[in-house]
Amino acid sequence: MELLKKKILEEGEVIGDDILKVDSFLNHQLDIKFLNEVGKEFWLKFRNDKVTKILTIESSGIAIAVMAAQYFDVPVVFAKKNISRNLETEIYTSEVFSFTKGTTYQIKVAKKYITAEDRILIIDDFLANGRAVLGLKDIIEQAGANLIGAGIVIEKGFQQGGKNLREAGVNVYSLAIIESMKGGKIVFREN
Amino acid sequence: MELLKKKILEEGEVIGDDILKVDSFLNHQLDIKFLNEVGKEFWLKFRNDKVTKILTIESSGIAIAVMAAQYFDVPVVFAKKNISRNLETEIYTSEVFSFTKGTTYQIKVAKKYITAEDRILIIDDFLANGRAVLGLKDIIEQAGANLIGAGIVIEKGFQQGGKNLREAGVNVYSLAIIESMKGGKIVFREN
Repeated sequence: MELLKKKILEEGEVIGDDILKVDSFLNHQLDIKFLNEVGKEFWLKFRNDKVTKILTIESSGIAIAVMAAQYFDVPVVFAKKNISRNLETEIYTSEVFSFTKGTTYQIKVAKKYITAEDRILIIDDFLANGRAVLGLKDIIEQAGANLIGAGIVIEKGFQQGGKNLREAGVNVYSLAIIESMKGGKIVFREN
Repeated sequence: MELLKKKILEEGEVIGDDILKVDSFLNHQLDIKFLNEVGKEFWLKFRNDKVTKILTIESSGIAIAVMAAQYFDVPVVFAKKNISRNLETEIYTSEVFSFTKGTTYQIKVAKKYITAEDRILIIDDFLANGRAVLGLKDIIEQAGANLIGAGIVIEKGFQQGGKNLREAGVNVYSLAIIESMKGGKIVFREN
């Protein structure tokens, strides 16, 4: 997605060799018109796949999932990371290891919001080691639902998540794949 | 907002005398068409107030803020609750006491995303004790920006947040105010 690559180059900030900050439009401040275009891109890719629900994880995935859901005309379910006394007792859970934080956390989805009839599109902002998407995939499998694919805004192609998920048969569609950020220079993978 | 009240009565679940679960459309699964109507309601109320930015807190506020922002044609900034190594070092912080969790947490907004020229509308899903909105108000004041008002989906009128905020001069606009949930029976405040 050329508009995305342009924004990454103009507004992204590389820290070290592997962190990309895109807080000006994706992870802290949200550029609504741009995110609408992102949602539309996911719809163009998956519009014939009879998606019934979009699944994401709080927090950064929510805005993108909502934008896409407007095009698909389906509900969004966001997996919760934190224990909440308001959360359903009948839940699917999965463990996700966070390389960023060096800890494992649980993600949770109330059972009643995913059924075996659902055809689910996962949407998330970043794909690096792929653990978050694997956790969502695990929950979808627990529910006996169908995983249609994963729409990712930015994939770090120099990490293993995208490769592992594709080898596991997941239809991963990333709007931009970064091949390298060495020395602060962002190189995209050619389409 | 009649549609909201209808959904609360049909889909909401009261736990004890003070917890309202609306996970089917607002806090876990997101009913996109409905949230679009919610966003439009906030726009109808504040459309003449020259809002330049919508401020919310992760996670449950994000979807509503994004929907409203489409009507206002302004960016959303969501305050972060957790420490992230990707977050800006130049940040405004404020302390928020959570009655639900019994702990105090910090909310953070990168300084560059709120300026003294901004006219800010706060949007959030619930208003109970009002501590989250007070934290956002504190950050807006630290930035020297203008607080236009607070758009709330569900206000618990039997708790003190709404009263305190209105007495502090905040233009609070709640789409539904619950007067009581005693014995599981939801009673709305008359407009």
